[in-house]
Amino acid sequence: MPLAAALRRVTAEPVRAPHPLPGFARSTVDGYAVRAADTYGASEGLPGYLTVTGAVRMGAAPDVTVTAGSAVSMPTGGAIPPGADAVVMIEYTAEAMPGTIEVVRPVAPGEGVVRADEDAAEGQQIIPNGCVLRPQDLAMLAAAGVTTVRVHARPVVTIFSTGDEVVPPDTQVLKPGQVRDATASALAALVADAGGEPVYGGIVSDDPGALERALRAALTASDVIVISAGSSVGTRDETANAVAALGPPGVWCHGLAIKPGKPTLLAECGAGPDGPAGTGVPVIGLPGNPRSALVVFRLIGMPLIRLVGGCAAPPPEPSTRATLSRDLASATGRLDVVQVKVSGGVATPLFGVSALLSVLTEADGYLMIPEEATGLDAGTEVEVTLYA
Amino acid sequence: MPLAAALRRVTAEPVRAPHPLPGFARSTVDGYAVRAADTYGASEGLPGYLTVTGAVRMGAAPDVTVTAGSAVSMPTGGAIPPGADAVVMIEYTAEAMPGTIEVVRPVAPGEGVVRADEDAAEGQQIIPNGCVLRPQDLAMLAAAGVTTVRVHARPVVTIFSTGDEVVPPDTQVLKPGQVRDATASALAALVADAGGEPVYGGIVSDDPGALERALRAALTASDVIVISAGSSVGTRDETANAVAALGPPGVWCHGLAIKPGKPTLLAECGAGPDGPAGTGVPVIGLPGNPRSALVVFRLIGMPLIRLVGGCAAPPPEPSTRATLSRDLASATGRLDVVQVKVSGGVATPLFGVSALLSVLTEADGYLMIPEEATGLDAGTEVEVTLYA
Repeated sequence: MPLAAALRRVTAEPVRAPHPLPGFARSTVDGYAVRAADTYGASEGLPGYLTVTGAVRMGAAPDVTVTAGSAVSMPTGGAIPPGADAVVMIEYTAEAMPGTIEVVRPVAPGEGVVRADEDAAEGQQIIPNGCVLRPQDLAMLAAAGVTTVRVHARPVVTIFSTGDEVVPPDTQVLKPGQVRDATASALAALVADAGGEPVYGGIVSDDPGALERALRAALTASDVIVISAGSSVGTRDETANAVAALGPPGVWCHGLAIKPGKPTLLAECGAGPDGPAGTGVPVIGLPGNPRSALVVFRLIGMPLIRLVGGCAAPPPEPSTRATLSRDLASATGRLDVVQVKVSGGVATPLFGVSALLSVLTEADGYLMIPEEATGLDAGTEVEVTLYA
Repeated sequence: MPLAAALRRVTAEPVRAPHPLPGFARSTVDGYAVRAADTYGASEGLPGYLTVTGAVRMGAAPDVTVTAGSAVSMPTGGAIPPGADAVVMIEYTAEAMPGTIEVVRPVAPGEGVVRADEDAAEGQQIIPNGCVLRPQDLAMLAAAGVTTVRVHARPVVTIFSTGDEVVPPDTQVLKPGQVRDATASALAALVADAGGEPVYGGIVSDDPGALERALRAALTASDVIVISAGSSVGTRDETANAVAALGPPGVWCHGLAIKPGKPTLLAECGAGPDGPAGTGVPVIGLPGNPRSALVVFRLIGMPLIRLVGGCAAPPPEPSTRATLSRDLASATGRLDVVQVKVSGGVATPLFGVSALLSVLTEADGYLMIPEEATGLDAGTEVEVTLYA
């Protein structure tokens, strides 16, 4: 991948410095390249005097050597001339007479200098494998002359919507009982955020055969399959049956101790008759309610896509600490995800049934009530994961 | 912008619901649509008996009315039939005999039901102006049938690199004193992260006339201009002169009380001879050291690009709290930005001169020592902004 297109891509191999970086000893200040020993003991009262024998130009090799008693004028970033081991800042010098400076502070060897291999030694790893490339990583690669980088392909994530009531978002007039497919657009965005390549599989009716055929057709071209699977008991069962029919390893679990999101299906399919676990295509059956589906997909789907995409460690998520505005009840043995608004350090829970999208759009983020808790008291300091 | 391409784009107008959402009263559970009054007093010991007069199918208008003493079978998400004002969960019912159910818990009116306008009333604002669109916002727009959305154009940000020592990143063999342009790639990435459209202006030599000509040529096609401006006193002055020559309003400030990043230039140019402030093109002259440049650009450049791009409130940044591992000194009257590694809740500062990129690539994030502080003590709890 060319560097200009590599932001947030995941490296598929470690990158090493092809040569030392920056590659030559550089000045970190405007001043004079000197032998440090020539400045020992220098002070305002008893300056040292040095003869200026030349000047270093930016981008050019020094054409002068620093010898005992001499100094060479240096711009910040210029190459340290042979013989010099330090740079005196211009602020600690003055022109005593044309061609001679006085130095009023001593410098130690190495002061004012970046070593030729201080950013990286030759062969040193500058970017690890499985790294999600950040802006500064691109800077380091550019500095090293690495302008193309091997990255993992984006996992192809096929997104299906199911339900006889679900119609495409561009349906202008709804018939009674119909709803537009809200989940697929948001899932595609979350897939992209996790580094995946979303592919719309379309809307499949509540016909077990139709779903199985659609899933089977998508299996070979997908790295992950996501189904927003209908929330009624009947459609949940049909989804599970269609997924199971795709073959081993099969369904891992059907139902999670999480609210919202309980009717979540996790499976792995299409590994072949003797395919071991881990060789098939992960399938996630999400609850039919858009809000439940998006909550579960953030917690389970996005980390899965990052893993499939070669990412060694998930990038940090925005979060903030806040004080809970009111008591929150919760059943033990279940993880509760609660949307909140955050203002002035106070987190105010938003309530509403799982079907309501407005709870998600009004929220700044969410907090989690752990499985073992029976709730949280008003005034508790909570960690809110913010929706970016 | 079509919805599928609108993630993270900034809305240019508020979006209102064209009709009530979800548009019809829906069941939130599998169960039976009833008149709530028919269930009052029902208990395990004394169930209520109701006659099942039909079933609602997903995506279809109910073809039956609920009357006193009757119930209609409901899937989750189905349309509530006329006459019903609540849905009893299937768990609180049992088939007493074919065509008759017993109800063992009372329901209140509205229970098990989402109102037709509970997600949004007709004309209600569902997405504000100046909003950076998040995945759930796309879901809400899709639910409302809004499949194209007016968004602000991405601000065009032209990025110049200056310096006789700077060569393109694809230069395989460096001559003595040369360095590859590391900053431009990272700046382009930060511009994209802030919602801008980066354009490479190229590398301009340390010739005042050349920089002025290049800036002037970019002025009309740019919403913001960024220059990584050389770190030596001479090149800093040349940059300031070239920017000033572009005309009023002119240079706002040259030098910031921040470390690293002191030699930062902020200007506004090309508003015309009588152009008032605010009508020209913002110009940011960054320090020549890549690390200083990237630190300053995060703090000043990215918020500026968001503002120019119409964003009403910046999206949240990832951050974490950590305990500082060691004392950090700082001069008062200056904001210090210190890169840190974070592990196990401990923030360990990384040191190195401004020229070192490896400090940025090794860092997990940064902390800031405020202007008024003389430093931070080991053990202080600090807020670390994480590099995503």
